[in-house]
Amino acid sequence: MDQTLTLITLDLVGCFVFALSGGLVAVRKEHDIFGVLVLACVTGLGGGFLRDMAIGATPVAALSDWRYLVVPMTAGLLTFYFHPALGRLEPLVNVFDALGLGLFVIAGAVKGLDYGLSPLAAAIMGLATGVGGGVIRDVLAGRVPIVLRRSVFYAIPGFAGASVTAFGLYFELSPPLVMAVAFVLCAGWRLLAMWRHWEAPLPRGSASV
Amino acid sequence: MDQTLTLITLDLVGCFVFALSGGLVAVRKEHDIFGVLVLACVTGLGGGFLRDMAIGATPVAALSDWRYLVVPMTAGLLTFYFHPALGRLEPLVNVFDALGLGLFVIAGAVKGLDYGLSPLAAAIMGLATGVGGGVIRDVLAGRVPIVLRRSVFYAIPGFAGASVTAFGLYFELSPPLVMAVAFVLCAGWRLLAMWRHWEAPLPRGSASV
Amino acid sequence: MDQTLTLITLDLVGCFVFALSGGLVAVRKEHDIFGVLVLACVTGLGGGFLRDMAIGATPVAALSDWRYLVVPMTAGLLTFYFHPALGRLEPLVNVFDALGLGLFVIAGAVKGLDYGLSPLAAAIMGLATGVGGGVIRDVLAGRVPIVLRRSVFYAIPGFAGASVTAFGLYFELSPPLVMAVAFVLCAGWRLLAMWRHWEAPLPRGSASV
Repeated sequence: MDQTLTLITLDLVGCFVFALSGGLVAVRKEHDIFGVLVLACVTGLGGGFLRDMAIGATPVAALSDWRYLVVPMTAGLLTFYFHPALGRLEPLVNVFDALGLGLFVIAGAVKGLDYGLSPLAAAIMGLATGVGGGVIRDVLAGRVPIVLRRSVFYAIPGFAGASVTAFGLYFELSPPLVMAVAFVLCAGWRLLAMWRHWEAPLPRGSASV
Repeated sequence: MDQTLTLITLDLVGCFVFALSGGLVAVRKEHDIFGVLVLACVTGLGGGFLRDMAIGATPVAALSDWRYLVVPMTAGLLTFYFHPALGRLEPLVNVFDALGLGLFVIAGAVKGLDYGLSPLAAAIMGLATGVGGGVIRDVLAGRVPIVLRRSVFYAIPGFAGASVTAFGLYFELSPPLVMAVAFVLCAGWRLLAMWRHWEAPLPRGSASV
Repeated sequence: MDQTLTLITLDLVGCFVFALSGGLVAVRKEHDIFGVLVLACVTGLGGGFLRDMAIGATPVAALSDWRYLVVPMTAGLLTFYFHPALGRLEPLVNVFDALGLGLFVIAGAVKGLDYGLSPLAAAIMGLATGVGGGVIRDVLAGRVPIVLRRSVFYAIPGFAGASVTAFGLYFELSPPLVMAVAFVLCAGWRLLAMWRHWEAPLPRGSASV
């Protein structure tokens, strides 16, 4: 009961910070207010949408709980009216975004297992939940998705966190312990990667810059 | 009985005019005949596809009724062979497109309610039905989706019409009245916005052009 | 039994060669290792994903069979580490890709019929399975999808093969014969089109180059 409430709260926090990032992209592209709201919503909700359509959890969660619509819309409105302040807060937004990624990959992997997926497939669904919204945001905004460009910041820590969750729960380790390890691994890795400017290996023969 | 027939007729008319707009984009990009047909079909059918996958109405409607395949293909062929005439008719196409938007948001909201969504979620599905095809068309054609750029023409009237439909039917007002008001509100607003060149508010600090 | 095994083998071979093509695009864009893996996987699996979500075959097949995840990941790793050799093998990759298209449109059309679609709708699903992965690959990589640009190489032979499969099986012709004809028609047409540099008709008034 209480645990479900905690999970939903964390999920909504993740949705909120992802929606902020979508709204900021729309503001920089000088879209009008509805463009900002739409990009905030698809960024905050897109990953869960994709996951729910793939595993057949329809109607998708975002449509059956009004909080999943109100939270990203609020984030979009805040971005629209207070974006200069939010721009200055970008380092803070990045920190929240790392926390959001950690929350989303865990929630996605747990839901995948609930729908009977194998641990590997559930980890993939966790990753898709964590990065899906950002991919849709970047495609709509006409940019190459960040998950393809900066994998050390996004895809690798996300997949690590989702895998720990999916395999840990599959082998019946203690759920709070598994989720705590997954969260620290995913969010911590991403924060370290940002702070230390890590880079992933490039294909042979590519320029290193 | 007769009402269902009317709704399907209107839905097919909407699909036809959206498919014309997709075909015209493909012709301008100098795609060949199959490219024109594909872009006509995804524009005419994409919104309903997305809605049906999100609410779990599978197989999606476009696959269970052959008319939903024949209508956009016909529109694509017409565009391919008669596009100079259609180009001159662009103002007329825009008028049909406004009518199509009105029909699609109503049909989407009604189907959302039928599948047990809340009125707010049904209104979002109505909007997704109305703008989804155009978003897919623009993404495939390498353009920023028009729904992000020109919201006063698309997203705001669409959401208004979808909301009137969803909340009106939820509170059990007379369906023909609700749909008539929603249609006039949505299509009328969009036509007025085109005619008067309305603009939506931009984020603070943006250049107004 | 034996026939199912053959079909799955062919399906996995198709997935492998499509994943190679996705990985090569990512390498050329100088994405890092995870970007290469992601683009290889979405290219190899995207068409089937789209089909399964549209017909309601959820959880989608790629998530319920671990081989569908291991095969494109292997292809992605091979591309990442051996891409100079693969680049020289591009003509060979194109041949495999033509075979992959032939396999995918047949598999997609058969699955569509299994889920109760009409033959026309099943043929459309076969086409979507064959070209869907490439469309997602091109959208994520910021290119106009090849299916819109070079239809004689992709969409027309794909639709021909899918139609032969869907209508042939619907009218209860011998399945091995139907699939053999469909495969030769689709893959052979595409190989001939590549070899002979065929072009599809352009809209009237377009420059022919």
